Amino acid sequence: MENYQHVLLAIDFFEQSQLVIERAKHIATTYQSQLSLIHVVDNLPFADLVYAGFPPDNLELMTVLMDNAKTKLANLAKELNVMEQNSYLEIGSPKTEIVRIANTINADLIIVGSHGRHGLALLLGSTSNGVLHHANCDVLAVRLQDED
Amino acid sequence: MENYQHVLLAIDFFEQSQLVIERAKHIATTYQSQLSLIHVVDNLPFADLVYAGFPPDNLELMTVLMDNAKTKLANLAKELNVMEQNSYLEIGSPKTEIVRIANTINADLIIVGSHGRHGLALLLGSTSNGVLHHANCDVLAVRLQDED
Repeated sequence: MENYQHVLLAIDFFEQSQLVIERAKHIATTYQSQLSLIHVVDNLPFADLVYAGFPPDNLELMTVLMDNAKTKLANLAKELNVMEQNSYLEIGSPKTEIVRIANTINADLIIVGSHGRHGLALLLGSTSNGVLHHANCDVLAVRLQDED
Repeated sequence: MENYQHVLLAIDFFEQSQLVIERAKHIATTYQSQLSLIHVVDNLPFADLVYAGFPPDNLELMTVLMDNAKTKLANLAKELNVMEQNSYLEIGSPKTEIVRIANTINADLIIVGSHGRHGLALLLGSTSNGVLHHANCDVLAVRLQDED
């Protein structure tokens, strides 16, 4: 059986994401795999804003969020020696975008943080489940402890 | 970040389970982790039989299934150099039993086969999802290709 050749680390920059980063770093080093990064800015909040009566062209908040995400992702890429072209910042549904990019780059392993049944799980739990369900490659869900 | 110390391989002996076995073998070798095995005989069919009017004490089929599973698990344990006491044959809900044994033995990684959205997925897809949802440790879902 081959080593994993190309690992896609899906990162959400929430608390404890350092755990997922460390695991990805460890695996990529152990297997000498190529490492790519993806962060998805969920477009749901913007849909909500529009629904709540904000004009659709009022994208100031989105710009701030995207700039913030871009900086964080660039810093992480630097820390992990990932080249800019292997670092993906996407807008949309996290599970859809993660699976789409994994297919595009022929990743054979997706690494994603997994929240449990409590707390944040209600909001975030669906990403790891969704990725697992739709991915065409292996998925490593790194367990994050929920604050109770 | 530490290597995985104790890997629990959850095996269902369906088609392609060799893929999951090879991946577990590869990871346990790479990380020099202890490897334990679990196979769960789902008790759902027996509940169905009882519901369908078979007398509850007619457990001949169950005995055959358990004997069959026992032999397969023993052969796999031998192949993987897993000692008998680290090889678990359980009856019940696969996700519940896998998570229970993982907790009991302090596994830090569960490896499980993952079926997609088609074919067998309707029947089997819930195991990897369920394990992911309930596990207290990392979960590696090894992708199995569905027959279309």
